[in-house]
Amino acid sequence: MKQIIKQYQDLFLHRFNELTFLKRPVELYEPIDYALAAGGKRLRPVLTVMICDFFGNNSEDAINPAIAIEIFHNFTLVHDDIMDDAPIRRGRPSVYSKYGVNTAILSGDTMFAKAYEFVTYTREDKLPAVLKVFTKTAMEVCEGQQIDMNFEEMPRVSMAEYIEMILLKTAVLMGASLKIGAILGGASTAECDSIYDFGENVGMVFQLQDDLLDAFGDEATFGKRIGGDILDCKKTFLYVKTLEKLQPDEQDKFIDLYASKSMEDNEKIAKVKEVFIQNAVVDDCRELMNYHHKLAMDALQHINLDAEKTAVLKEFAESLLGRDY
Amino acid sequence: MKQIIKQYQDLFLHRFNELTFLKRPVELYEPIDYALAAGGKRLRPVLTVMICDFFGNNSEDAINPAIAIEIFHNFTLVHDDIMDDAPIRRGRPSVYSKYGVNTAILSGDTMFAKAYEFVTYTREDKLPAVLKVFTKTAMEVCEGQQIDMNFEEMPRVSMAEYIEMILLKTAVLMGASLKIGAILGGASTAECDSIYDFGENVGMVFQLQDDLLDAFGDEATFGKRIGGDILDCKKTFLYVKTLEKLQPDEQDKFIDLYASKSMEDNEKIAKVKEVFIQNAVVDDCRELMNYHHKLAMDALQHINLDAEKTAVLKEFAESLLGRDY
Repeated sequence: MKQIIKQYQDLFLHRFNELTFLKRPVELYEPIDYALAAGGKRLRPVLTVMICDFFGNNSEDAINPAIAIEIFHNFTLVHDDIMDDAPIRRGRPSVYSKYGVNTAILSGDTMFAKAYEFVTYTREDKLPAVLKVFTKTAMEVCEGQQIDMNFEEMPRVSMAEYIEMILLKTAVLMGASLKIGAILGGASTAECDSIYDFGENVGMVFQLQDDLLDAFGDEATFGKRIGGDILDCKKTFLYVKTLEKLQPDEQDKFIDLYASKSMEDNEKIAKVKEVFIQNAVVDDCRELMNYHHKLAMDALQHINLDAEKTAVLKEFAESLLGRDY
Repeated sequence: MKQIIKQYQDLFLHRFNELTFLKRPVELYEPIDYALAAGGKRLRPVLTVMICDFFGNNSEDAINPAIAIEIFHNFTLVHDDIMDDAPIRRGRPSVYSKYGVNTAILSGDTMFAKAYEFVTYTREDKLPAVLKVFTKTAMEVCEGQQIDMNFEEMPRVSMAEYIEMILLKTAVLMGASLKIGAILGGASTAECDSIYDFGENVGMVFQLQDDLLDAFGDEATFGKRIGGDILDCKKTFLYVKTLEKLQPDEQDKFIDLYASKSMEDNEKIAKVKEVFIQNAVVDDCRELMNYHHKLAMDALQHINLDAEKTAVLKEFAESLLGRDY
């Protein structure tokens, strides 16, 4: 399976990495090249290209829309880093901390427009459908980011609110990446919807695993500092579920501990993780991941792909359940 | 002429003013309604609707793309106000000063996506062409804003650089508003290009007049504080042309005066305007406006519209030459 996905990754990266947007004014475009060169798994566009090929035996039609998705995703990171006050992204200074807030705003805006430029390269018969999914998703991702920002001011976040946030902020783009690939590959409307459901649920698994890894992953493999969410007081699944399980008299103490900015980093991380462990919320997280994995598998049953291709998607979904990177 | 434009304005406003984007999360959408309710002339979308009707006897097809243009324009204002540190917009707190920078970034992003949502409502046969013009223009407007920001660090700006900046930041959107209307009205490619040239040159006149009014307008009629550009050390036509005309030994003194932030407001405005007057740069500005007006008139000659409609466009262009609002 990995070998097959790797082929599509190579195909996409070959095209993506040769892009440069550098032109005048360089103050605007250099940060865009910088942002896009940060790497990352390029998971979403690779899925777009792969699914298009799965349905239509043709990945070429998907390249430009896939590039659009990757540029859009990176645009959201550029603006999110300003809002989240995050100076580091993938081990390098984030765009705003390297180039300043104003440039990060405007280069981000230009990336958003650039993303649409690549949408315009979609073959005309598929353009309206692709544009609709892309635009709806863009708005939902903004909504998800807003809900996440709202959480900063809220000591208590319900599980329903948390689920809505990660659905909008992360899962819908995964669904859209797959759906756009399916549209371009000529899948039926029903199949496009099913592949969206598959992607959305796989996206939920992806984000829940991210929450897990942030607290309990291996720093070297994960590539980010373990405990970052805890230090940033992020309302993760582990936090929300812990609060839900704690007795009322223990909740305020935990809220205070999690909100603390004065404690020494490692001490705070250790103490919070201790409460997570006492409440066995890792098990709850895995349970929810399995639930969304099951929904993804159900969605897959409504899609007419041959056994080999279905197996690739199954294995891809399973790999996210256990990923440590 | 004003009566005819007024009809299209009423038509557009009737549809535009009934829009509300308010939904959850309200923290994201309330600022959008606030930004769009600020008023303004709605010049661009009214032109789109009018030109579509002029070519195709049908304004309905243009309503949604016109809304897209107006939302896009207001999105740029929301982000520009952050970058330009401008707390007031049309007599009210700007979005960032009312709701905070993070909200202004994200609500702006959502407006950009919303603008594209209205582009997606374009009839399918015209969608690719409209999308292309819209997206190219969006990027150019970002480039114009970047060049304008670059000017802040540059004491000397050449006339060529200034022209490029206002072309990108202001004129291209006027050209695009008209071109999109023409596309939707079924104009020929050559006519679409000519109407774009007309709009771009009219846009140049519009911006040059803005520079003039900012220094020499009437506060009550213009609706903005006179001398705002001078206090903000904005590189306007008047500044750039004055520098061009001053003797080398006088230039540094003027640069220092214009860059001064310590002088009392009215004193700085008076002193700068004195230099403008001594160098007769208002005449130069009018000359350049007349030049672009002439180009606009030339473009009009390549467009097959009946005498009455051509007269409306001519009078519209002439009204911008002498506007005091």
